[in-house]
Amino acid sequence: MSQTAELTRFLHAHIPLSQAMQITARAYDGQSLVLSAPLAPNVNDKSTAFGGSLYNLAVLCGWSLLRLKLYEAGMEKKNIVIQEANTRYLLPVSGELQAECRLVPEAWQDFLQPLQQRGRARITLNIIIRQQDKPAVELTGTYVALD
Amino acid sequence: MSQTAELTRFLHAHIPLSQAMQITARAYDGQSLVLSAPLAPNVNDKSTAFGGSLYNLAVLCGWSLLRLKLYEAGMEKKNIVIQEANTRYLLPVSGELQAECRLVPEAWQDFLQPLQQRGRARITLNIIIRQQDKPAVELTGTYVALD
Repeated sequence: MSQTAELTRFLHAHIPLSQAMQITARAYDGQSLVLSAPLAPNVNDKSTAFGGSLYNLAVLCGWSLLRLKLYEAGMEKKNIVIQEANTRYLLPVSGELQAECRLVPEAWQDFLQPLQQRGRARITLNIIIRQQDKPAVELTGTYVALD
Repeated sequence: MSQTAELTRFLHAHIPLSQAMQITARAYDGQSLVLSAPLAPNVNDKSTAFGGSLYNLAVLCGWSLLRLKLYEAGMEKKNIVIQEANTRYLLPVSGELQAECRLVPEAWQDFLQPLQQRGRARITLNIIIRQQDKPAVELTGTYVALD
């Protein structure tokens, strides 16, 4: 099973809301991850994407990217939790929801080193949702990995 | 139908994710609103509440309170959108999710006046989710009402 198929399966099995949203892991290249979800189950009263669905997709995109990277680093037992998130809604989203998170190599190293030494570390990630190539939602999230 | 029953019906009819979350409007006294949701459909891989579900409940609590208040003020045609949200996760939530938003009367007046005069206004609300009386999630959201 591919890493993206395994991630989709994990999310649906352990976070029922990700299944209700029909989230799919689309692409992963070792540095960036794309998650998507169709509009229909994520719509609001204005027939655009519900702000909560946009948040969920973005926050899970960052969380999932950390999970994939920690697996590769042999630290699959770590728990990853969201500690703080700032979300800016710039444009309504009227089609498929698609979130992307790209890891800055330096930030990953700054996270990995204290995590290996002290068992706990924090990282801030930027996740973006675009609407026809324009930024529609920007989420800045601080995640903590711990035992 | 009571205001809380009508609100629950509206949310389920227009925002499918609120139905997947089994959100219920619990109490409204003209100044504060309580929304709740059971843990089961909102659980994460650690058997506590998913951070995205906590966000959705909180952001809809603020949104719904504004909707109720705008109805009472005869401005039921206004659209309310979330513009920016800051979410702080302080404690895991391991039982029913319950969010409360309380309106500060001065903030409501500072919102209502420009809304009546210029057709558009912005308000910042604080929403809290408690775990056994301790703050577990704090969301500060800026909402915009417009035509």
